[in-house]
Amino acid sequence: MSTQDISQDELWMYRALTVAREGLGTTSPNPPVGAVIVKDGLLLGEGFHERAGEPHAERRAIANAILRGHESQLRGATIYVTLEPCSSYGRTPPCTEAIIQCGIAEVVYASTDPDTRHQGRADAVLSAAGVRVRSGVCKEACDAFLRPWVHSIRTGRPWVVAKIACSLDGRITRRHGGWLSCAESVSEAHQLRLESDAILVGGNTVRTDDPALTIRSPKTAIPKAKIQPWRIILTRDEASLPATCQLLTDDEAQRTLVFEQVDELKLWLESLYKEYGIVQLMLECGGNLLRTFLEQGMVNEWMQIVTPRLCGGPDEMLPGDFLPRELAFEPEYHQSCGTDILIRGIIR
Amino acid sequence: MSTQDISQDELWMYRALTVAREGLGTTSPNPPVGAVIVKDGLLLGEGFHERAGEPHAERRAIANAILRGHESQLRGATIYVTLEPCSSYGRTPPCTEAIIQCGIAEVVYASTDPDTRHQGRADAVLSAAGVRVRSGVCKEACDAFLRPWVHSIRTGRPWVVAKIACSLDGRITRRHGGWLSCAESVSEAHQLRLESDAILVGGNTVRTDDPALTIRSPKTAIPKAKIQPWRIILTRDEASLPATCQLLTDDEAQRTLVFEQVDELKLWLESLYKEYGIVQLMLECGGNLLRTFLEQGMVNEWMQIVTPRLCGGPDEMLPGDFLPRELAFEPEYHQSCGTDILIRGIIR
Repeated sequence: MSTQDISQDELWMYRALTVAREGLGTTSPNPPVGAVIVKDGLLLGEGFHERAGEPHAERRAIANAILRGHESQLRGATIYVTLEPCSSYGRTPPCTEAIIQCGIAEVVYASTDPDTRHQGRADAVLSAAGVRVRSGVCKEACDAFLRPWVHSIRTGRPWVVAKIACSLDGRITRRHGGWLSCAESVSEAHQLRLESDAILVGGNTVRTDDPALTIRSPKTAIPKAKIQPWRIILTRDEASLPATCQLLTDDEAQRTLVFEQVDELKLWLESLYKEYGIVQLMLECGGNLLRTFLEQGMVNEWMQIVTPRLCGGPDEMLPGDFLPRELAFEPEYHQSCGTDILIRGIIR
Repeated sequence: MSTQDISQDELWMYRALTVAREGLGTTSPNPPVGAVIVKDGLLLGEGFHERAGEPHAERRAIANAILRGHESQLRGATIYVTLEPCSSYGRTPPCTEAIIQCGIAEVVYASTDPDTRHQGRADAVLSAAGVRVRSGVCKEACDAFLRPWVHSIRTGRPWVVAKIACSLDGRITRRHGGWLSCAESVSEAHQLRLESDAILVGGNTVRTDDPALTIRSPKTAIPKAKIQPWRIILTRDEASLPATCQLLTDDEAQRTLVFEQVDELKLWLESLYKEYGIVQLMLECGGNLLRTFLEQGMVNEWMQIVTPRLCGGPDEMLPGDFLPRELAFEPEYHQSCGTDILIRGIIR
């Protein structure tokens, strides 16, 4: 898309979305949000929400405009926000208040608040104060971006993304060792770790691979606000985990959680959201545990890395007859990723 | 690639390659070849080899130029041919002779004759008669196009292309029936049938699916010279095939071959080439037979159609531990195909 094909509204909203991405993986249980303040085609300030309890994107954009010396120009400006501004007191005062106070004349937002109790309320509050409001600009892109968070608000559970790497013949290991995926694919997987609040493996993976599950080579820089995602081990028997494994002994050991005997995933996922604020959970487990998540309908997104290689070994991706019925899949994209193929989509 | 990026030589050679494609699937055991005759930037005539025993591309291009009333202009013209012209007597007289006789001044060809006894001989014969010769234009594209035939000349066996359709989780059937692949993918599979000389299935596929293995919806029109590819059934026990199955009873039943107890595929493939002139064999068999072909190193090309769906049923693509060592795969491309993903490459 060239800049000539899109409107000024879209241009600024995509800018706000780009800014919002800087908060990806650090804002849970809040959503990542971006805001851009514009007047006469010039950018006055921009900001993103970085961490729960800290200022929202709108307030940071206003502060940024002031920092840049544009305070007097805020009156009559337009603010583009990726999500409907909050209009009620939470851990921080409502953004609608800050917008009204500094004299911003127009609010353009993309996605509406998924909480039906608040949905559209910003419009009323702002309009009553004489601020023009428009919504729905770049809604599709912003809705997609907010999908995990919207899911967590609506269901009270984390958005679960399964990451699976396999060969053309569906093997998850190479015959004689060595990495299956190429460096670029590993980087995609680390990017997903960066964007997630927790990463899950089974006891078997801990015993076999002894993974660290740390973010080492993501595609983008690691935000300074990012902390190590929770590392969750699901096991039948905690005592069977090797006492020397990385997850229990390394510098991030306090970020490891072990759960035993989880039968109903739905209830357990609800507790992860409620107790730990986990909005996005990434599965890096083996086929058996992944099958259980699929069987119980608890996988929302699917990221598959296919390495063009025929391995033919014993380690099959998802062995055996396991689904009572097919899962509908809504492809998002497939693309080259180094020498691999990356397939990503939503499971309905 | 725009026409401005490529030379006149390449432009005409790609034209010759396009013309050659019209013979794809009808020329075995000969190669598909195309020729274009050009003078002062104008096309005088073009032709392709259609069937073994019939005129080669060069003679058909000359005849086409004459038919178009350009006989007198042949003197001093340039002929572009995708493969080195033949210089010896076969079922038809040598093309070098026809080229010299009609006064063509220059021959440009892409690929050299893979038969080391003939390789480069056209150059000597033509040069001796005062015809300029150049070679190697669009060599890569023409070599790729001729790969199956070159393989058959060099090894005395058909080029074997495995076609496999599966879901993201490597299942080859859907839980409750229905086609796995989308219509566009089926069309790709029928195109491969069109381009092949024979299609192989196992007895089990015949008993379970009762396929017709006819060319019904290929991407391109079916050439008038195309006859039904051989339909080959490999089975442990011929008597176990249902007497009423389509392959043994339909209008094309005389194009079905049944082989029992084939152990060493290499020798058997040699006999298919020698006795039936099969240059390209397409595998549409199930996982067990495909595993045998892979184990014995007898698969040359791989076409995988991945349907973005999680089926989770019992029918796995290539179950079990079967390859003594990994097979190196050289990806040709992956692309969207309707709602599916098409992955194609060469197995080394």
